Amino acid sequence: MQQLDSPAIDPTSIFEYFRGSYGTELLTAAVAHFDLFGRLAQQPRTLVELQTDLNLAERSAIVLTTALRAMGLLTKDSAGKFELTPLAAEHLVRGTEFDVGSYLSLAATSPGVIEMVERLRTNRPAGLGGDEGGAAFIYRDGMKSAMEQTQLAEHFTLALSGRAKNVAPVLAQQVPLNDATTLLDVGGGTGIYSIAFLKANPQLQAIVFDRPEVLKTAERFANDYGVADRLQLQSGDMFADPLPAADVILLSNILHDWDVAECQTLIQRSVKSLNPGGRLIIHDVLLNDELDGPLPIALYSAALFSFTEGRAYSAKEYNTWLTEAGLRPQSPVPTLIHCHAIVAGQAG
Amino acid sequence: MQQLDSPAIDPTSIFEYFRGSYGTELLTAAVAHFDLFGRLAQQPRTLVELQTDLNLAERSAIVLTTALRAMGLLTKDSAGKFELTPLAAEHLVRGTEFDVGSYLSLAATSPGVIEMVERLRTNRPAGLGGDEGGAAFIYRDGMKSAMEQTQLAEHFTLALSGRAKNVAPVLAQQVPLNDATTLLDVGGGTGIYSIAFLKANPQLQAIVFDRPEVLKTAERFANDYGVADRLQLQSGDMFADPLPAADVILLSNILHDWDVAECQTLIQRSVKSLNPGGRLIIHDVLLNDELDGPLPIALYSAALFSFTEGRAYSAKEYNTWLTEAGLRPQSPVPTLIHCHAIVAGQAG
Repeated sequence: MQQLDSPAIDPTSIFEYFRGSYGTELLTAAVAHFDLFGRLAQQPRTLVELQTDLNLAERSAIVLTTALRAMGLLTKDSAGKFELTPLAAEHLVRGTEFDVGSYLSLAATSPGVIEMVERLRTNRPAGLGGDEGGAAFIYRDGMKSAMEQTQLAEHFTLALSGRAKNVAPVLAQQVPLNDATTLLDVGGGTGIYSIAFLKANPQLQAIVFDRPEVLKTAERFANDYGVADRLQLQSGDMFADPLPAADVILLSNILHDWDVAECQTLIQRSVKSLNPGGRLIIHDVLLNDELDGPLPIALYSAALFSFTEGRAYSAKEYNTWLTEAGLRPQSPVPTLIHCHAIVAGQAG
Repeated sequence: MQQLDSPAIDPTSIFEYFRGSYGTELLTAAVAHFDLFGRLAQQPRTLVELQTDLNLAERSAIVLTTALRAMGLLTKDSAGKFELTPLAAEHLVRGTEFDVGSYLSLAATSPGVIEMVERLRTNRPAGLGGDEGGAAFIYRDGMKSAMEQTQLAEHFTLALSGRAKNVAPVLAQQVPLNDATTLLDVGGGTGIYSIAFLKANPQLQAIVFDRPEVLKTAERFANDYGVADRLQLQSGDMFADPLPAADVILLSNILHDWDVAECQTLIQRSVKSLNPGGRLIIHDVLLNDELDGPLPIALYSAALFSFTEGRAYSAKEYNTWLTEAGLRPQSPVPTLIHCHAIVAGQAG
């Protein structure tokens, strides 16, 4: 039987180096494709004004401006409008003495930059291979998804689980569930988070809820880790099918795949399935409440933006949705590789 | 008449964010294309052994290993062989418990990674557009080069000068030439470094030596900055034609475009043209003497590797070549945007 321990060494830095390309692409896109710094040199602009100017959806504009704020290139003035920092004003406005924009524009036509510009302009995730439409990592009704094809579903699920295996035991350590009987793991994938909680809480039973193709991997994992007797697999569509009732519902690295409306829906649907006295756990990366960093999360947000319909959110955003759904969120608890757990119990 | 002052704000961070993609590409190439971590988990290897295993030229192997050392993934054992750090051993060896290599390999077929793998395997710079062979930023006899085509030469020269305009006045400030009468600026491009030295040293005359197409831009710059009466333009091939004699010879951001043999040749040719008591200035970025960082220079080195026949070198490497050529190098003096000046006078 396989153990599931925490790693000895924090692998976060590997992920940060791995995501450097998103910094290159967003910075070059802003300079060479959107003339963002030239526009803001004329006058500060609100997010909505920037969206109108650049013809960008809100999600695109947030991903772009969050990264540039994290790089120290944009800030907000007293009226809440985006303006250039002195660094950007001196070095990124075309035609000025110390502008390095032409140097950066040498990368304007590199494939990664072109792809990022396309993602930003369309606000749609990258297609699967050469296929238009569809997405590799997410599923919803009517969407072509790798998660509906056995081999691809296993490939992506296993690849993503390399990160989750490191994080899951830390989550189970940080969030005690010794008073709970049932855990529902919505979009649980390999089930690795459920498995970690089961290993840490002998009284617990868990249900992994996901697409049928993905659950094949979860079934294997449950056997490998020796928790098959306490782990139930339930296939369904988390946006459409009834969710099973549970004391604890986990949304681990799920909401970052979806846009605001879907996040609110998933939270509301989860709350309805909570047993009395139950709690919801959002386990995810967190942007600063001001949406101005940290840079590694801003770059991960760009990755999520590129491959899903989501982005990284702030604790403030999650807390707003949790509160609107009738829950009382606690302070975020850090786990590993930038993730945090927000535990929210029923209010009143 | 245009002024040439130092910038108020250091733009270095912009360049560091801009080059993040090289970290993504080298890390992913090592994991997904070269199985470098799996190989080194079997046994430590010297640079030459790694080159043989991976069928890589020395330049490719140095660029790859320098970046991975700077990321804290490789180190050298007591016998001088590359081995995995504990971080890489726990997280980047395939099939082990906490391996995140499959996650990173999701980027294995991205265009930037594929391009980097091609550069590493061939040890040849990227072609100009769809054209095989040739290079955008460098010229030597028999090579197809953008620097031989008026419009492209101006485009690239001006783009690169955005960085040089920031650095040049700092170089002139840091390296006093008040006792010199003649400066030769080999591969001087726009002539911006010569112009900065001329502005700082009223007694000085300078010669910019470069390709004829590039010198058209230098002529315009000399007029704009009001130093045309003290700036001579001389076209030629720095590897083949005689270099004019001078008290000071400057190789500013030139040697990083060339492989070791060409660097040694350029230094030797420069030394031969030095007036008695003269000195050579190498102005360039510097890797650590151990070739294990700093990371921003390791990533810039990957950029140089991709677009030229060079890479970043260490002060130790430059000092060896300077000493072999009969000069006595002083300690490097920092200027701006990672650059340093090594001033070397005639020995004895």
